[in-house]
Amino acid sequence: MALVQNHFHPDYAHVAKLFEAYAGAEEEAQLVVYVGGELVLDLASNTSPDSLTTVFSVSKALSAFAMAKLVERGQLDLDQTVAHYWPEFAAKGKERVTVRELLSHQAGLPETDVPLTAEQFLDDHAAAEALANQRPFWQPGKGHGYHGLTIGPLISELCFRISGKTVQKFYEAEIRSVAASDGPHGADAYLGLPEELETRVLELLPQVPPTPEQLAEFAPPARWSPGPIGQHLFANGLAGFITTAEGRRFGLPSASGVASARGLARIFQWATGFGKQAKAGIDPDVIDRFAQLQTYGLDLVLDIPTRAYGVVFMKPHPMHAFGSHRAFGHDGAAGAFAYADPVGEIVLGYTIRRGPFPGGMDLRLMPIINALRTVAAGSGRA
Amino acid sequence: MALVQNHFHPDYAHVAKLFEAYAGAEEEAQLVVYVGGELVLDLASNTSPDSLTTVFSVSKALSAFAMAKLVERGQLDLDQTVAHYWPEFAAKGKERVTVRELLSHQAGLPETDVPLTAEQFLDDHAAAEALANQRPFWQPGKGHGYHGLTIGPLISELCFRISGKTVQKFYEAEIRSVAASDGPHGADAYLGLPEELETRVLELLPQVPPTPEQLAEFAPPARWSPGPIGQHLFANGLAGFITTAEGRRFGLPSASGVASARGLARIFQWATGFGKQAKAGIDPDVIDRFAQLQTYGLDLVLDIPTRAYGVVFMKPHPMHAFGSHRAFGHDGAAGAFAYADPVGEIVLGYTIRRGPFPGGMDLRLMPIINALRTVAAGSGRA
Amino acid sequence: MALVQNHFHPDYAHVAKLFEAYAGAEEEAQLVVYVGGELVLDLASNTSPDSLTTVFSVSKALSAFAMAKLVERGQLDLDQTVAHYWPEFAAKGKERVTVRELLSHQAGLPETDVPLTAEQFLDDHAAAEALANQRPFWQPGKGHGYHGLTIGPLISELCFRISGKTVQKFYEAEIRSVAASDGPHGADAYLGLPEELETRVLELLPQVPPTPEQLAEFAPPARWSPGPIGQHLFANGLAGFITTAEGRRFGLPSASGVASARGLARIFQWATGFGKQAKAGIDPDVIDRFAQLQTYGLDLVLDIPTRAYGVVFMKPHPMHAFGSHRAFGHDGAAGAFAYADPVGEIVLGYTIRRGPFPGGMDLRLMPIINALRTVAAGSGRA
Repeated sequence: MALVQNHFHPDYAHVAKLFEAYAGAEEEAQLVVYVGGELVLDLASNTSPDSLTTVFSVSKALSAFAMAKLVERGQLDLDQTVAHYWPEFAAKGKERVTVRELLSHQAGLPETDVPLTAEQFLDDHAAAEALANQRPFWQPGKGHGYHGLTIGPLISELCFRISGKTVQKFYEAEIRSVAASDGPHGADAYLGLPEELETRVLELLPQVPPTPEQLAEFAPPARWSPGPIGQHLFANGLAGFITTAEGRRFGLPSASGVASARGLARIFQWATGFGKQAKAGIDPDVIDRFAQLQTYGLDLVLDIPTRAYGVVFMKPHPMHAFGSHRAFGHDGAAGAFAYADPVGEIVLGYTIRRGPFPGGMDLRLMPIINALRTVAAGSGRA
Repeated sequence: MALVQNHFHPDYAHVAKLFEAYAGAEEEAQLVVYVGGELVLDLASNTSPDSLTTVFSVSKALSAFAMAKLVERGQLDLDQTVAHYWPEFAAKGKERVTVRELLSHQAGLPETDVPLTAEQFLDDHAAAEALANQRPFWQPGKGHGYHGLTIGPLISELCFRISGKTVQKFYEAEIRSVAASDGPHGADAYLGLPEELETRVLELLPQVPPTPEQLAEFAPPARWSPGPIGQHLFANGLAGFITTAEGRRFGLPSASGVASARGLARIFQWATGFGKQAKAGIDPDVIDRFAQLQTYGLDLVLDIPTRAYGVVFMKPHPMHAFGSHRAFGHDGAAGAFAYADPVGEIVLGYTIRRGPFPGGMDLRLMPIINALRTVAAGSGRA
Repeated sequence: MALVQNHFHPDYAHVAKLFEAYAGAEEEAQLVVYVGGELVLDLASNTSPDSLTTVFSVSKALSAFAMAKLVERGQLDLDQTVAHYWPEFAAKGKERVTVRELLSHQAGLPETDVPLTAEQFLDDHAAAEALANQRPFWQPGKGHGYHGLTIGPLISELCFRISGKTVQKFYEAEIRSVAASDGPHGADAYLGLPEELETRVLELLPQVPPTPEQLAEFAPPARWSPGPIGQHLFANGLAGFITTAEGRRFGLPSASGVASARGLARIFQWATGFGKQAKAGIDPDVIDRFAQLQTYGLDLVLDIPTRAYGVVFMKPHPMHAFGSHRAFGHDGAAGAFAYADPVGEIVLGYTIRRGPFPGGMDLRLMPIINALRTVAAGSGRA
């Protein structure tokens, strides 16, 4: 299949050109961009714009919008303790952990002493219950480490205690289905994929193997071994359930969301209402609170200093410089990415079937993002 | 003009010799040092000891002494909230920010979403008002980043709310004019230069261009882009107003102070009262509280791990090892520097007209400072 | 003398072989390991299994068990202020320092402005009194730095205020003498060596000089000078008193403990009760609280990012990856090491007479520890 170039705004022809290289590289990828509320890029390479892939941790951004809605409604206070909403969470020295800490990877719960099973993750409450009984892996608030999978059940239980709905159900009712009516193509970004959409799913392909140069570039510092936290998480193939049909159906809110680039961009555009502020799906003041940088520096799970988090959202960082200080989004382990930046009023959704080394945000996006920011700045938006 | 060597104590002849190299390099520089309250070096190279230059962020140290005076008088408590003194500051999630955080670059206010203008900076309240309405760029207390310009208006407004005077006026009344009567040569270190002194001002000269080796030495880590915070601050030439006559007249308390080395050293010597403790201008216990290390590590604005701050003051750090753990001072962007160290009872003031690469403290001072510390240690003072 | 190979379990023959290299290298070393409560290695190379050496900071682990006992009994609360138990400690801005901060190197008291003397360290209260009168070297809680010597007097005074006993006396009465009756060979791990055991002491030998390659490998970053904190601690030979007979007799709880590998392992095995949980010397829940990671990253005293602390205990870290996230122990400056890991139920004690470069945990232990963990994992314990 060749490049399916659905749409680009003439001011962004040079950005579309950057994406064309994906076709030559035979990548099945999708890129959708809004600027100031206007759809300026709607591109797909070697695939349909309506095909769906598992977007891994971009799912967290979808969950984040659900939690932001609870804050907007006054039902959730970021500076309240988690135990206020979820009393059992207080166990093992967690009485004073705040919602803000829980939602920014500071609670010390990236895994449990007895490793969580796929069955627990695929249950509405089982993983959360085990996490509530876990002593934090570090003194909460004294550090952060990526809660790659566990932030999903934690968010979901918190949402459930407040709203009576898992975050998947709350997201579907209050975010996705509302955003879907905001424009064409609906909002194909699911936490819990409806069975009838399984036929549109493209199974992910294995990561492109790294070159020796790449391996060297991303190697850890000399004399640096894997740290003591997170080894179960990444060493035991646990994550296999994420990309099964069952995983997609369940929609683990940290990892097994399924989306197209159009869907991701729709959710972000609807939530921010760029270009039509009166219609923002979520109060921009609440969005700003979620977009505020909460933590950065050495990640105790990943053992790298390359991440920065807002409330749930991933933030720009010198090694992922995707936007202004107000930008927020999330990448996925296999390359997908979505973000919004109030400076420039940019929204971007991106998916790819065969992820790049070393994983996480596909760094080939950086020239595309830089070009978008330059146009936005020229237009007076930034 | 040749070296103007005004005075040196025989025990410090070898230190004076280190400074002589400035003459050969045709630098217009001033160096004044007290040890134990005694003036041991009063040197000027290719300029008069009474000429004045803009000392950029050394201004912060002058402001710091003003705030320390408020603490000494019991009018300001470092652990109180800023909003206690300045209620409007509570906006946008800043209710709990403490004075200590504000004065140590932890408040998350290095700039504003709508960039501040020169007009706002040159107004007694406009920049402060905009900053009070800004959401912090990071969760206050969870990190620090150099508030290069903004700490000036923030300090000034806080001082105004407590004393009814801007920090420039308070500094002039309670610090500079008092210190001026403490010895010969007055105290030529101004936040707000009197018009009649404009004739003594030397305009700064452009920085010496770096060699390729220097550029490489100070280059950021590979794969490291400028971070999302502080880009407006350093990219838009905003700072031009600092070195105009109007800027000098206003005396932005973070950046447009004007001083000679004699003046800087006089202020530090008066404040600490080294060698004559009964006459310390500021209670040494308060000085120690301001000199206590508050924060260090990755600077979220500068994207470098090379700074450490006390309360307003800059602290010694492995990359700027200018003193003992009790030492405190501040450098300026164009090379000026002033500090005091209770260990050794050393006070130093330094100015230079043509700043060195890469900016900040002129690193040629390090051998001079190390020599001073060695003499002081030999004398039993350290 | 040749290798004295006292005992090894057949499943661990390959681990014993790793230790045999010590004999060829003529090292006088001891290694004792329990797995699941069973003694699996009891080895000595070129020395008797009953000889004793100064274990420097492994002493801290012994003190830690004493403090854990106070917590178990409800007499000490980690989240209480230190001043609650020790009112004089509140001086100089330390009113709010918590026990948790004090016991995890966060209190800012690694030394005093007037350097502490050997006489003060060898007194039950003098060093503690001076430390109580010291302003913290940094804002407590805002950073950590190794309180290499001072944590001893600080722990001891806290213990004394609660129990009426120095930590040496409390440890002897409530930990060591109890553990000694828990199995053969007693518990040769002393804070305060009985005079009659002096004859069993092997004086430590000077560190093996580093090769140029080793020096280069452990060199600090370019442009990095020793930081302003801790210079007295490491530059003045103060520590000489630790290894005198008087020092051993006093048993400074941070540094002059004297032990055999058997003794160290006995204390850890008794405390944890691995393999026989009903008989744990200290409530496992309290052990877990002490083993929780409290702080990590740049050490303000050592100027290196290579340490991580629990409550008193040293934690695994990417540069000392000795166990799971629940592991806890401590190394000594001259190479000794002891730790326990609930994952795998491993306990290890190790001493060496001639320490390796660069000091701290003997890194030749890493292959041994990795092999132990592999066997434990295969047995289903991990």
